[in-house]
Amino acid sequence: MTTEAPRYGYFGPAGTFTQMALDAWEPAAGREQVPYASVEAALEAVRAGAVDAAMVPIENSVEGGVSATLDALASGGALLVVGEVLVPVAFVLAARQGVPAARVRAVGTHSHAWAQVRGWMAAHLPDATYVPTLSTAAAAAGLAEDGDEPAYEAAVCAPVAAANHGLHVLAEDIGDNRGAVTRFVLVARPGRLPERTGADKTTLVLYQREDHAGGLLELLEQFAVRGINLSRLESRPTKDSMGSYCFSIDIEGHVLDERVGEALVGLKRVCEDVRFLGSYPAAHGAATKVSRHTSDESFAQARAWLQGLRHG
Amino acid sequence: MTTEAPRYGYFGPAGTFTQMALDAWEPAAGREQVPYASVEAALEAVRAGAVDAAMVPIENSVEGGVSATLDALASGGALLVVGEVLVPVAFVLAARQGVPAARVRAVGTHSHAWAQVRGWMAAHLPDATYVPTLSTAAAAAGLAEDGDEPAYEAAVCAPVAAANHGLHVLAEDIGDNRGAVTRFVLVARPGRLPERTGADKTTLVLYQREDHAGGLLELLEQFAVRGINLSRLESRPTKDSMGSYCFSIDIEGHVLDERVGEALVGLKRVCEDVRFLGSYPAAHGAATKVSRHTSDESFAQARAWLQGLRHG
Amino acid sequence: MTTEAPRYGYFGPAGTFTQMALDAWEPAAGREQVPYASVEAALEAVRAGAVDAAMVPIENSVEGGVSATLDALASGGALLVVGEVLVPVAFVLAARQGVPAARVRAVGTHSHAWAQVRGWMAAHLPDATYVPTLSTAAAAAGLAEDGDEPAYEAAVCAPVAAANHGLHVLAEDIGDNRGAVTRFVLVARPGRLPERTGADKTTLVLYQREDHAGGLLELLEQFAVRGINLSRLESRPTKDSMGSYCFSIDIEGHVLDERVGEALVGLKRVCEDVRFLGSYPAAHGAATKVSRHTSDESFAQARAWLQGLRHG
Amino acid sequence: MTTEAPRYGYFGPAGTFTQMALDAWEPAAGREQVPYASVEAALEAVRAGAVDAAMVPIENSVEGGVSATLDALASGGALLVVGEVLVPVAFVLAARQGVPAARVRAVGTHSHAWAQVRGWMAAHLPDATYVPTLSTAAAAAGLAEDGDEPAYEAAVCAPVAAANHGLHVLAEDIGDNRGAVTRFVLVARPGRLPERTGADKTTLVLYQREDHAGGLLELLEQFAVRGINLSRLESRPTKDSMGSYCFSIDIEGHVLDERVGEALVGLKRVCEDVRFLGSYPAAHGAATKVSRHTSDESFAQARAWLQGLRHG
Repeated sequence: MTTEAPRYGYFGPAGTFTQMALDAWEPAAGREQVPYASVEAALEAVRAGAVDAAMVPIENSVEGGVSATLDALASGGALLVVGEVLVPVAFVLAARQGVPAARVRAVGTHSHAWAQVRGWMAAHLPDATYVPTLSTAAAAAGLAEDGDEPAYEAAVCAPVAAANHGLHVLAEDIGDNRGAVTRFVLVARPGRLPERTGADKTTLVLYQREDHAGGLLELLEQFAVRGINLSRLESRPTKDSMGSYCFSIDIEGHVLDERVGEALVGLKRVCEDVRFLGSYPAAHGAATKVSRHTSDESFAQARAWLQGLRHG
Repeated sequence: MTTEAPRYGYFGPAGTFTQMALDAWEPAAGREQVPYASVEAALEAVRAGAVDAAMVPIENSVEGGVSATLDALASGGALLVVGEVLVPVAFVLAARQGVPAARVRAVGTHSHAWAQVRGWMAAHLPDATYVPTLSTAAAAAGLAEDGDEPAYEAAVCAPVAAANHGLHVLAEDIGDNRGAVTRFVLVARPGRLPERTGADKTTLVLYQREDHAGGLLELLEQFAVRGINLSRLESRPTKDSMGSYCFSIDIEGHVLDERVGEALVGLKRVCEDVRFLGSYPAAHGAATKVSRHTSDESFAQARAWLQGLRHG
Repeated sequence: MTTEAPRYGYFGPAGTFTQMALDAWEPAAGREQVPYASVEAALEAVRAGAVDAAMVPIENSVEGGVSATLDALASGGALLVVGEVLVPVAFVLAARQGVPAARVRAVGTHSHAWAQVRGWMAAHLPDATYVPTLSTAAAAAGLAEDGDEPAYEAAVCAPVAAANHGLHVLAEDIGDNRGAVTRFVLVARPGRLPERTGADKTTLVLYQREDHAGGLLELLEQFAVRGINLSRLESRPTKDSMGSYCFSIDIEGHVLDERVGEALVGLKRVCEDVRFLGSYPAAHGAATKVSRHTSDESFAQARAWLQGLRHG
Repeated sequence: MTTEAPRYGYFGPAGTFTQMALDAWEPAAGREQVPYASVEAALEAVRAGAVDAAMVPIENSVEGGVSATLDALASGGALLVVGEVLVPVAFVLAARQGVPAARVRAVGTHSHAWAQVRGWMAAHLPDATYVPTLSTAAAAAGLAEDGDEPAYEAAVCAPVAAANHGLHVLAEDIGDNRGAVTRFVLVARPGRLPERTGADKTTLVLYQREDHAGGLLELLEQFAVRGINLSRLESRPTKDSMGSYCFSIDIEGHVLDERVGEALVGLKRVCEDVRFLGSYPAAHGAATKVSRHTSDESFAQARAWLQGLRHG
């Protein structure tokens, strides 16, 4: 980080849920915000130093992992997650002023958003066709700007995007899963780790050795034997061949926790590669439950005992 | 299946890689083929009896699992996978006749395809903007039909789609991963299972019990203790809440194999639910390696011994 | 079993803790009891039909497994444990009438008994030497019969043995562990299994395959994956070479329990050999805790579901 | 150790297999050797400083673990195993000069030896009765010294004991298992550990937590996850109550090996107690096979990587 005021990138344009996540990140209040057209572009801007950190979506409670983010973090120059934000996802159906629902024949939105409102559409606008756009905010922008013959009559977007573009809200909260939440992470260049809070997460990518049979079971045992819980596991193709996977994993705990450190040493030994993507405070804030057999004190006592055995 | 000639649906339009997969499925040769605008629509047509089976993409060696297919199979009326097809994915950049690469300012294609050619685009057309379309074939069709001012000057699509629409190929084989392959599955209504070939796969969805700590490790042990290998594992959100996942899994073996049957009984006991999505011949055709301790003969001998113990 | 009244053998002579165990076995009340000079002889008499069943010690809470019994059950003609009895072990120091503790220079008893009173001896008769005898009862008998110059002045034995031989008790309850208990098993020829009570034990001997790495861990997983607890595990040399072991194991449950049956099938598959030594009511009588995922009902439901998958 | 010449104790008397083991221990050549009447006495002499080390039997390829040694090491003042010796066990049947086999009606020996010659006795002297003695050498000594009416006419003992006492050998090599071997360990007070040789063993006693379900499986996983093989495992009662066990274990490796150290830290955390009984060269001398994922180099590299993650 420079001594200048930090600059924040995000997967834009303005009016996306990602910007809402950045707005919810307190240290970014009042700082310069730079939208990027893709997750890759936002992360590349971090790597290049154009911004100091970037907010990107990583996981959605309905759609699952965001592949573009998982893959962009798993390859290329090293980056670290330094924080996470959870944003409730509430979609609206928005149209130009004066356009009623009855006149909607096509609907524009991002494919992830479309997947989350499909039930509502089938019930209320069964004949509407779908027009993909680059983001939900782009759908709203396109509708506002697209001249006399827009490609679609309504957009599915965040309420703020509808407001930004002077659109009229035809229906609110149209997501098929009312409690839908998207998880965003703030990504920075490697540097000082966020401090331990006792309610932390660590994000890893594990690459298996090709010549290794046990596979995922063996990797999970490295966590289990140290009493570490996983909060997310996703397999991602390594792009080498069909059936060759790596695993994107979130665990409960901080790399400075003894149990996490020992598990990382174990994984580093048995994996082809381990990519450490950061330790940071969990958004839920609930302290990780640690058994007395896996606490730092337990490790310290056991190590002291071992030193005594070894050196008399 | 009816006594009439079977009808096949697929995720269309014509000219997609999915149609190429259906063309490669021998029993479908010369049969009626019906394109559907989405994976969901194709599978719903199977459920409703409008077609007898449908070909849909399930996994890509670069992009990973196809969420729409995984989710549509995991919920709704029961369906069974009865076959799989692997299709090499070779993208071309296609334009209208007479349009050179130098005039391409925007490129249309499906978001999955865009993700797979991003490197080529950065190297050859760094200033081109991306226009999302419903499918790669739709990108070609749109370019062919879109009047004087098309939304994009070139499409990324399969060679067959370029040919279908009379487009000119500006560049061939532009995928960033030359060996990219997409895996398609043929899905039918429940009925007679495909016969055992010794080179089979079984597809499952496992839902964990909420009150169960061990988690994925416990589920994987149900396979390991019977010597069963996994060829694919993906976590998918159950859409109830952030962090609530089910697992979409392919294993080596057929439900009629003793070791697979016993593993299914074990999973059924410990899981909240197990959704069986079919046993079918693996496209690679290589016989599954089965240790002598997990062969059907080994099970039969051990069961006969147990019967002797129990009944004297 | 014959239609005649059953005859019971035991590891004698009369007055041993083993006879006390046989006396505590209700069906043996009033039946003929035949002492044998060794565990092997008692079990051989069962095999030969000289007696219908024999009571032998198998495990002591202080000294551990009784090797002679474990080995005699693990080899030779098939036998089945059909019941178990727990007997508190209370030793007395007994001498001829008129002999005070001050005149005791040597003490006779069985080596297992000596091991259990060593602390008391060190405190009260530190200078007494130890004379091994074939059993605790033999020590008492030898003292009663051994003429003018007995090999030892006092015997460590059961109270009943002292009484049988008209000896004087110098000290009572001299065991170093007051709660010491010995476990005895009643062994019969193979035939009808004892009925399930819900509080049962099953005894097994497991022989590992030589070419099998995983070893004991793999065997224990066969129990764990079916939710079966072990109440005893002992390794015993297979007598082939140093470091070649089999495992003598007691588990909670009856061979007629589904979870036990499936575990036995699994063990039979992966082991070089499995020797089934019987299912019988546990002496403690406390019902085995069975999780709802491993109950017979759970297995039955899961198997019915599997049948549906397989046969439509 | 003092600067004076070391003194060695052993489980005597002279002429036992234990003395043969001590004779085979090169550093003891020409040193003072002190026999003790029991394993406990020999180990207590080490604790008290009366001798510098003592040789005791720990495991027999036919009879299994030597309970007295296992228990004496597991409790009382700390002791360390500093070496091991393997001795082939060859028994002879010995009598007084002039006494033929035909006149043998009773045979004296230690109960462990008797168990190992039972088959030979049944074939050659089926009517002979058994007289227990404190050791095999004591059987020979007793026969030599026992006046006109010995308690037995022949002794089962080591060849050296027959020679020591001027006895006549009636039959050689009468053990039922020709390849029988007994393993002895040299035990000293805690001090400098034997150096690493790459072909080492470490002996441990593990006490489980009472409130801990997983049990032995969980302990074995601590070894498995670090690629450590067990060469011996025995359960021993903790003497508190029936069914309460500790585990006496030998593993391949030295406490100075990284993988062993980490396993010990893990066990210390999850066990009620871990008793370290020493690391010492294996008698077989064959280098331990260590995978490249569990070598010291692998641990060192992984730890250096972790330090980099933690401290930038």
